[in-house]
Amino acid sequence: MSHALSCYKPTMASEVVLELKVERERSRLDLEELTNLLDGGAVFTDKRREMVKMVVEDPVFKRDNKYFLSTEESFDSAMRKNVHYIELLKSGKLKENNAEAYFKSAIDDDFPAAVHELMFVPTIEGQGNEEQKEKWLKISRNFDIIGCYAQTELGHGTFIRGLETTATYDPSTEEFVMNSPTLTSMKWWPGSVGHTATHAIVVARLITKGKDEGIHLFIVQLRSLEDHKPLPGIKVGDIGPKFGYFGMDNGFLHMTNVRIPRDHMLMKYAHVSRDGTYSKPPAEADKISYVIMVYARALIVDHSAETLARAITIAIRYSVVRRQTQNRPGEPETQVLDYQTQQFKLFPLLASAYAMKFAGHYMMKLYTEVTKEISEGNLKSLPELHATSAGLKAFCSELCCNGIELCRLSCGGHGYSAASGLPQLYADYSPSPTYEGENTVMLLQTARLMATSIYEAFNQIIKLNNEQVMMNPTWSHITGGISSKGNKISCCSIGTI
Amino acid sequence: MSHALSCYKPTMASEVVLELKVERERSRLDLEELTNLLDGGAVFTDKRREMVKMVVEDPVFKRDNKYFLSTEESFDSAMRKNVHYIELLKSGKLKENNAEAYFKSAIDDDFPAAVHELMFVPTIEGQGNEEQKEKWLKISRNFDIIGCYAQTELGHGTFIRGLETTATYDPSTEEFVMNSPTLTSMKWWPGSVGHTATHAIVVARLITKGKDEGIHLFIVQLRSLEDHKPLPGIKVGDIGPKFGYFGMDNGFLHMTNVRIPRDHMLMKYAHVSRDGTYSKPPAEADKISYVIMVYARALIVDHSAETLARAITIAIRYSVVRRQTQNRPGEPETQVLDYQTQQFKLFPLLASAYAMKFAGHYMMKLYTEVTKEISEGNLKSLPELHATSAGLKAFCSELCCNGIELCRLSCGGHGYSAASGLPQLYADYSPSPTYEGENTVMLLQTARLMATSIYEAFNQIIKLNNEQVMMNPTWSHITGGISSKGNKISCCSIGTI
Repeated sequence: MSHALSCYKPTMASEVVLELKVERERSRLDLEELTNLLDGGAVFTDKRREMVKMVVEDPVFKRDNKYFLSTEESFDSAMRKNVHYIELLKSGKLKENNAEAYFKSAIDDDFPAAVHELMFVPTIEGQGNEEQKEKWLKISRNFDIIGCYAQTELGHGTFIRGLETTATYDPSTEEFVMNSPTLTSMKWWPGSVGHTATHAIVVARLITKGKDEGIHLFIVQLRSLEDHKPLPGIKVGDIGPKFGYFGMDNGFLHMTNVRIPRDHMLMKYAHVSRDGTYSKPPAEADKISYVIMVYARALIVDHSAETLARAITIAIRYSVVRRQTQNRPGEPETQVLDYQTQQFKLFPLLASAYAMKFAGHYMMKLYTEVTKEISEGNLKSLPELHATSAGLKAFCSELCCNGIELCRLSCGGHGYSAASGLPQLYADYSPSPTYEGENTVMLLQTARLMATSIYEAFNQIIKLNNEQVMMNPTWSHITGGISSKGNKISCCSIGTI
Repeated sequence: MSHALSCYKPTMASEVVLELKVERERSRLDLEELTNLLDGGAVFTDKRREMVKMVVEDPVFKRDNKYFLSTEESFDSAMRKNVHYIELLKSGKLKENNAEAYFKSAIDDDFPAAVHELMFVPTIEGQGNEEQKEKWLKISRNFDIIGCYAQTELGHGTFIRGLETTATYDPSTEEFVMNSPTLTSMKWWPGSVGHTATHAIVVARLITKGKDEGIHLFIVQLRSLEDHKPLPGIKVGDIGPKFGYFGMDNGFLHMTNVRIPRDHMLMKYAHVSRDGTYSKPPAEADKISYVIMVYARALIVDHSAETLARAITIAIRYSVVRRQTQNRPGEPETQVLDYQTQQFKLFPLLASAYAMKFAGHYMMKLYTEVTKEISEGNLKSLPELHATSAGLKAFCSELCCNGIELCRLSCGGHGYSAASGLPQLYADYSPSPTYEGENTVMLLQTARLMATSIYEAFNQIIKLNNEQVMMNPTWSHITGGISSKGNKISCCSIGTI
């Protein structure tokens, strides 16, 4: 485009800055204080700025031609960045005060090996016994192997108990035999499976002594550590083109009689002995393992805030610079941001981005507190943690999705150009309502706790007659609502809450 | 993927068909009758089927690898299809009963030269004088030249009066001198400008005898008919990557002292004589020329119905085939369509697709009636036509956009795969709320007629005291609403309508 624009002096740039400057000078907020609040403290702001600077100054992380890459080139570029990030990580340059997260956020690209750190390692930490942690964690943390998490199948996403992949124990060799017995049992969608991963945690039905013991986790090596080729019995590949997220190789995995040693089943809770005798996990193990998913959902709340903040920043800056329609003769055209209709679109989204950011802080705090309680053997807050994370995940991801699109549309035609950043932001973000718990299912689970809490609240109030009782926050919110309605409580009151 | 799937017998296909068959057999509608109603008569249904068959059987229109093409390959493919379509059109094979439209709809790809037929030719028909029609229409209809419509500039979309491109009349040579005097005056977004068009209708400010006479239309040749290279003074190119719509070369156009003959200004209404004397168009000319835009909006209503129908068909078929969660032991998993939450998402969209289809029929009927009235010199229904088309354009395009995304999300993870068809359907459709009249602006214009009609209605009722008066339909709808409230009418009643 420099050819077409070369006849114009570059003074436009400073004009644009001037208009933004005028708007910014109107703010009476202490920006540094607000920034620190958003980051969670000045020390984090400093670290974030340090990380952003490192990324901006590193040529490997350049993204000038981002929107001109083909799907394959996008993946190659993401892989190159991922490898460079791992080198920096291993060199110890990304330490303390959330440095890694800030660094990755500044890179602003998908990482083909992202699930290695996000799911593979934490699952072994949480579900492996001591010998397994010893065996796998060191080589994993050193990136000698790259792991993924193969749960979703062609036929099953939400309904985990319906997964069909089998791990049949063979006591004669003390191995599990992994199989994909049907078309629909093929693993489909897991990230990093397409090209990247050498190993997978495979979610499969354990079959031992002829009995189906349900879903358990198994570590399966997918590719050779010598030449990265799929091992015998393994068929893996990329599931093909998708809406966005081109830097992630979502893949398929099909297994035919793939044999793995007995100790590749993660055995912190459940156990299969040499002769194939199965020991159930304790009742609370399911709940504890569920906490990993809660963490993923808490991250989505924060990610929604960050993503919407990017979109709204683009849209508001554009609306300051863009002028359209001369409303009074002789005066300049009106800045688009000064139209009420534009404000009506953008300002609630701006407020929402802040609200979601602080909801993300709350969510992380709750997560930290409850996991501490759990480590002390106290599981009472788990339902509250579950319902809150599920509800916030659904609410924030939907709000963010719709918000990005509203930002795009509020930039008029220019929002449709890849150069606005908004189309790819949307395409990359838009699987969020689906992954890590489909939104409709999440909302129903939150609704279930709320409904249960309402009934509990009524029963408790009737029973205890205003006596002080232990409440979970949802419960307390609801009873507060009821109490404020006066003394007379009946079932009809529910409709008025 | 045949490699991974080769171990399975192909019986899955017939199972899928069976489940759809069961659902379809439950319908008590006469499908042929309904189809004819949607098409506007059996003769149209026959023609549509004939055209679909022609497309399906023609190897040039194959789209098996559609989602695997790069942006450039997508454009090449669209161009190849467009050229083949033009050959068929010229051979007379696409005649009568809406054949062309059905044929293009069945091809289901963008046409780089689409605006030639949609805007270039109709504008000359509507705005050219007899000599101009004689000169341009024959070669245009024969596709000897390919035209586009260059209106939007980098700095102006909605506010047409703010366009900056100039056409300065030079009486010494009897030519207009076309210029792009500022960065923001560069034409930006017009379809076909990037690579395809040889000619453009350029919307520019007419300057003659030192006076700016405002916006007029000029035919400018962009590229050589010999080697397709840009002519001297013309800079043209593609504006680069965008959300979707890869088969259309939205482009930029910059002009420096490009001279065109005097008779390249479209002069049916306005006129510049040899010495540069300007004659204004008659007062109603603006309104008449506006009718072309109304037609484009009427097409969007129908296109919204068709697009949403495609999306909802995909989502409902998927929901029939997809089963998730075993709700009762021993029974098969529940078809996703049987969940109330899924029905709540999809059924209103299904109903909306039908409603929009019939709204499209109404819109076309209104358009035909009003253009007939206009040709007889009667302009009284124009405001109603304008407000209806603007409001329906905004309403239907937003509903369709949101609807496609809801369909995509209701297909879970598989909706994110390009293979579902939904991501590209969305990306290609999603400029609709912006082009041909930005939706917010459209809604405000419809609201204006409604508000005006309310005040007129009150004044008329007070004045005429129930006497029969001529009403436009909006007016009549509103007064009907008021009358039903009783005899006592005051300004306060407005709030209760």
